[in-house]
Amino acid sequence: MNTFGNLFRLTSFGESHGSCIGGMIDGCPAGIMVDMDFIQHELDRRKPGQSTITTSRNENDRVELLSGIYEGQTTGMPIGFLVRNENHHTNDYEEIKQAFRPSHADFTYQKKYGIRDPRGGGRSSARETISRCVGGAIAKLVLNQYNIKIQAYTSRVAHIRLDKSYKDYDLSLTETNVIRCPDLQKASEMEQYIARIKEEGDTVGGVISCVIQGVQVGLGEPLFGKLHAALGSAMLSINAAKGFDYGLGFEAACYKGSEQNDSFYNDNGQIRTHTNYSGGIQGGVSNGEDIYFRVAFKAVPTLLKEQSTVDIDGNETLLKARGRHDPCVLPRAVPIVEAMAAMTILDYLLLGNAK
Amino acid sequence: MNTFGNLFRLTSFGESHGSCIGGMIDGCPAGIMVDMDFIQHELDRRKPGQSTITTSRNENDRVELLSGIYEGQTTGMPIGFLVRNENHHTNDYEEIKQAFRPSHADFTYQKKYGIRDPRGGGRSSARETISRCVGGAIAKLVLNQYNIKIQAYTSRVAHIRLDKSYKDYDLSLTETNVIRCPDLQKASEMEQYIARIKEEGDTVGGVISCVIQGVQVGLGEPLFGKLHAALGSAMLSINAAKGFDYGLGFEAACYKGSEQNDSFYNDNGQIRTHTNYSGGIQGGVSNGEDIYFRVAFKAVPTLLKEQSTVDIDGNETLLKARGRHDPCVLPRAVPIVEAMAAMTILDYLLLGNAK
Amino acid sequence: MNTFGNLFRLTSFGESHGSCIGGMIDGCPAGIMVDMDFIQHELDRRKPGQSTITTSRNENDRVELLSGIYEGQTTGMPIGFLVRNENHHTNDYEEIKQAFRPSHADFTYQKKYGIRDPRGGGRSSARETISRCVGGAIAKLVLNQYNIKIQAYTSRVAHIRLDKSYKDYDLSLTETNVIRCPDLQKASEMEQYIARIKEEGDTVGGVISCVIQGVQVGLGEPLFGKLHAALGSAMLSINAAKGFDYGLGFEAACYKGSEQNDSFYNDNGQIRTHTNYSGGIQGGVSNGEDIYFRVAFKAVPTLLKEQSTVDIDGNETLLKARGRHDPCVLPRAVPIVEAMAAMTILDYLLLGNAK
Amino acid sequence: MNTFGNLFRLTSFGESHGSCIGGMIDGCPAGIMVDMDFIQHELDRRKPGQSTITTSRNENDRVELLSGIYEGQTTGMPIGFLVRNENHHTNDYEEIKQAFRPSHADFTYQKKYGIRDPRGGGRSSARETISRCVGGAIAKLVLNQYNIKIQAYTSRVAHIRLDKSYKDYDLSLTETNVIRCPDLQKASEMEQYIARIKEEGDTVGGVISCVIQGVQVGLGEPLFGKLHAALGSAMLSINAAKGFDYGLGFEAACYKGSEQNDSFYNDNGQIRTHTNYSGGIQGGVSNGEDIYFRVAFKAVPTLLKEQSTVDIDGNETLLKARGRHDPCVLPRAVPIVEAMAAMTILDYLLLGNAK
Repeated sequence: MNTFGNLFRLTSFGESHGSCIGGMIDGCPAGIMVDMDFIQHELDRRKPGQSTITTSRNENDRVELLSGIYEGQTTGMPIGFLVRNENHHTNDYEEIKQAFRPSHADFTYQKKYGIRDPRGGGRSSARETISRCVGGAIAKLVLNQYNIKIQAYTSRVAHIRLDKSYKDYDLSLTETNVIRCPDLQKASEMEQYIARIKEEGDTVGGVISCVIQGVQVGLGEPLFGKLHAALGSAMLSINAAKGFDYGLGFEAACYKGSEQNDSFYNDNGQIRTHTNYSGGIQGGVSNGEDIYFRVAFKAVPTLLKEQSTVDIDGNETLLKARGRHDPCVLPRAVPIVEAMAAMTILDYLLLGNAK
Repeated sequence: MNTFGNLFRLTSFGESHGSCIGGMIDGCPAGIMVDMDFIQHELDRRKPGQSTITTSRNENDRVELLSGIYEGQTTGMPIGFLVRNENHHTNDYEEIKQAFRPSHADFTYQKKYGIRDPRGGGRSSARETISRCVGGAIAKLVLNQYNIKIQAYTSRVAHIRLDKSYKDYDLSLTETNVIRCPDLQKASEMEQYIARIKEEGDTVGGVISCVIQGVQVGLGEPLFGKLHAALGSAMLSINAAKGFDYGLGFEAACYKGSEQNDSFYNDNGQIRTHTNYSGGIQGGVSNGEDIYFRVAFKAVPTLLKEQSTVDIDGNETLLKARGRHDPCVLPRAVPIVEAMAAMTILDYLLLGNAK
Repeated sequence: MNTFGNLFRLTSFGESHGSCIGGMIDGCPAGIMVDMDFIQHELDRRKPGQSTITTSRNENDRVELLSGIYEGQTTGMPIGFLVRNENHHTNDYEEIKQAFRPSHADFTYQKKYGIRDPRGGGRSSARETISRCVGGAIAKLVLNQYNIKIQAYTSRVAHIRLDKSYKDYDLSLTETNVIRCPDLQKASEMEQYIARIKEEGDTVGGVISCVIQGVQVGLGEPLFGKLHAALGSAMLSINAAKGFDYGLGFEAACYKGSEQNDSFYNDNGQIRTHTNYSGGIQGGVSNGEDIYFRVAFKAVPTLLKEQSTVDIDGNETLLKARGRHDPCVLPRAVPIVEAMAAMTILDYLLLGNAK
Repeated sequence: MNTFGNLFRLTSFGESHGSCIGGMIDGCPAGIMVDMDFIQHELDRRKPGQSTITTSRNENDRVELLSGIYEGQTTGMPIGFLVRNENHHTNDYEEIKQAFRPSHADFTYQKKYGIRDPRGGGRSSARETISRCVGGAIAKLVLNQYNIKIQAYTSRVAHIRLDKSYKDYDLSLTETNVIRCPDLQKASEMEQYIARIKEEGDTVGGVISCVIQGVQVGLGEPLFGKLHAALGSAMLSINAAKGFDYGLGFEAACYKGSEQNDSFYNDNGQIRTHTNYSGGIQGGVSNGEDIYFRVAFKAVPTLLKEQSTVDIDGNETLLKARGRHDPCVLPRAVPIVEAMAAMTILDYLLLGNAK
């Protein structure tokens, strides 16, 4: 299940400390101009070491597109790609070969497969998100033609949260700070809080919000293919994701029907809703309003503190991470959320065309 | 996309006021004794009219299994089934043929398909959950053989919520009240609140919690097939679902890594975790602990109040539902949540066997 | 794997002697007028008892469409359907419950599933083709809008074969005789031959040819989704099919490249080929010329002669079919071949639209 | 549709003259020792230039496995791989950029996608079979553990054919000659014939036969997932394939039922058949006997002769291939047929385990 999507499909491979992270995009429409700078830029957004509060490893990931492009345009054929891995400190990971890091995939993978690549977390490392970024960047290039725009931002770190709607922020400010938060005051508070947590050798989680604008009416398939179910599945497949909701989301529980129904009106021939509690999706199908949702992320489980655990032989032991680790995954997850959203929307757009 | 699952697959068809709701289960293991009473019982749990606060239509749904069974056992062949529809008051729905009910699928379906069956909501009616219940009941019969147990309950209605862990309740009390809430005091409060809302002609949402016990280590597939992504997609496909989270879920945002990591210990040869903030899933794969999650539901959008909307020609108009409608979908959604969970877990159990 | 197709999908269930044969079509475009007479007519074409040389059971199969239709048109929602089974002589099949009929699915199903429904062949009975006919009829209704026409005919029974291209026959004669062969002289020979074989209690196989006209350039997907691979898989899924080839097919082996290449020319602005050895498909994609292919069928394995076999306990025994059985499946397979072709072409047409 | 398989899945990308041919295997069982020499050997078998009658390009294809392996064993994670392309004479292909080669994919791809990579045939080049060989080699490593053995051989070139069953040949002789034909006399005739055709600048087709031994009873899924339908689809996806049949195949047409039924007997507790006209598959499910089938290939359409065609603007023109080309694809297709068979069988073996 390393393939995502129905008609626009990302296939992904690669481990943290193998030779590369790679993948393939199948079903990309033909005739799209491939803007390599944009793709590399999207990839760079997920890079660690963008500030003192994210992992300081100096990764220098360059994407190579291996197929599916001729004279600068997509041909409709699969687009293979890879990013070479560098900077292996394999001995940093000798210890976790023997012991299971708490709340990581070490134990479950070992039990499920009887073997695992422990180097840097192997397949379950966050490095796999490289593939998602490449796939998402290419999806965005296609969505540009439909004037569909996807913007995610950090809306919560620990107790520090943005309480207002995405409409009340200037989302162009998101990329101006390392937190990727459009509220600069809150961004500063979050940054300071994360710095403090980092000093403790601890980590912290948060919430990412995402808005998709310009989606036409009609994306989404009946019953099990509801658009928000696809978005939810996409988001929950990201490492460390713990929850997804859209529109009013979990808050819908305390709204009456009369308070959350979005009444329709005729906006010069276009049917629109006065409010948008639905989050742009009704009956599983986009209604033309902005689509917005949230994704909850837990704190990274890798701590620079001693933790009790069990080794591969069942003996209890202590484990403390070494090296450089993110105290907070949120800023780097922003482009991943956008990438997964872009691939999902494009996939459903193509499904909608198939009639 | 009216098919759910990879190896254990439910296919569903039927509209609220068509001749029947039906479907088919493909990939059910052979040799399972088919307990018709149990299946009918599971179906009855979703039935409206179980109390004064749920829809009082007297539906009398009897499931017929049409194939895939020989001498009382499953044969591995597809199990077709149907439940005949009765009690059509088609004229009740003449009005919504012309106008789009706010926050329903009327508008999006009409735009997407250029046509829709307005009678009783057509395909997007909650009656489609009949198929889910039948599929879930059969999945449960298989899961019984693995001693896997799935229990959902209403944990929130509007502002009234259960604050404690599922471990602190006696879940056998869930089915003793119409709310399906194991806290009898809270159940009573919820019931009264819903009755009041009903008098207003209004509706209310809430949250359902679900626990899955007895799942072995190893269910879940890498990357895009993480177990919680599959559960999330399953739950979000239910009508009126607005959100899904598991383990600590959205609350994980305000826990430090050191506070939410589940440290391992050796429990007489079995590796277990002291705590279970992970919700029984680590790296997308079950770790042998209880799996638990929540699903948020919005208030039913059908109100016995006048609402402004737009008709099929774009003219603004007023609409007020007639007939009998649920003021709160939660109690009837409890068995649906269980059914979707059962099918997901069985599907992943079969995927895990394929090696 | 009781579902066929990618975007236009047929799901099928039901056994020969269960309550019904049924299924569901998912992904049918909305707004198609449903011509029930046509659907029933297509179903009637597969019916046994159309002549003295096919099974004389008086099946009276009426299809009921259960969903997905409103005011006579498809709504884009799944179309459930069923055909009730009648005329069960279950005691006719007591014997095969104990013994494995040679070259049937009895032995393999028993070993694979540990259980099988022996009544009338259960799931592996030719009655399952009812679902294919219904799916094919609905696909044909959609293809009519694209002026795509599909015609199959019996081109060989035993040693009696049609040696000429489909272009040299008047295919409108196909339905004028019980063999469904457009060469009336050969049809008569085939009929007499089958009658003779029937008297011997034996059976005989043959070949069905099929032509698809009006397909635009561009149907077919790269690599594993080549159009002829999809057609081949569809045809080989029919009971008793032993082979598939298209264009020159197996004869291509003895043609030189220079003899079988189809050179292009410009036909008033449309690029066409002078010859059509390719069978309308090049590089796996339709090129606008007629698509044609053949399907080989073995003789029905049910004989009114004694055969040696083994019973369920491994004891060697003798078995002789009772009741009424087809001496030759070919005439009744003609509509099945068309049905599978129609669903495949429509599925690929929708895939082609998804861009 | 550049992905093949259900549970064991090959995804493929790359063009003839792009940077590489690559792909990924998903769903490979964990704990398989990866024998790189064997994989490279399988890849070398498809290499051109193995004799004077196959393409004399000196390709030196080395496979790199990029992921999914740890300490020499598969980990259950996806196995990415690539083979770098070398030896580009891009100017050799300037001409076919403008004109459509007869009976190639040039025209259909151009019309379908509006763009195509003409260099060396782009995606539709036979170089894509590199991915199939790598996938097949890895599948064979897994199948070795089940003692399943797959052997293909050239059984026909033009009019020169092997008339006997595979049982009457010593298949170990297959790899002793450039034709890959176990009948050395016929191999010699074929070789001489191909040499003569080559001198004419022409090409020739043929048939490959394949035997699969050691498959247990029970591989194959009901209805649309019949084992031979999967094998047929796999084989028909190979470039230049025109037909597939199994067991008696097209010859079944002229056998009576009584002549081709395989009667069962008890072979010391194991139920076997006296004959094997069924080709090891009954009712779509393997019955434990040898599986055997044939694949027809047309002559390569690239001729060293002038052919009339049409250019991209619709003007009629002449085209003559330059460079080095295979006069007969058969010998090099033998390992491809084996590779596709190996992946199909392993995929169905895993499907069979999923219960």
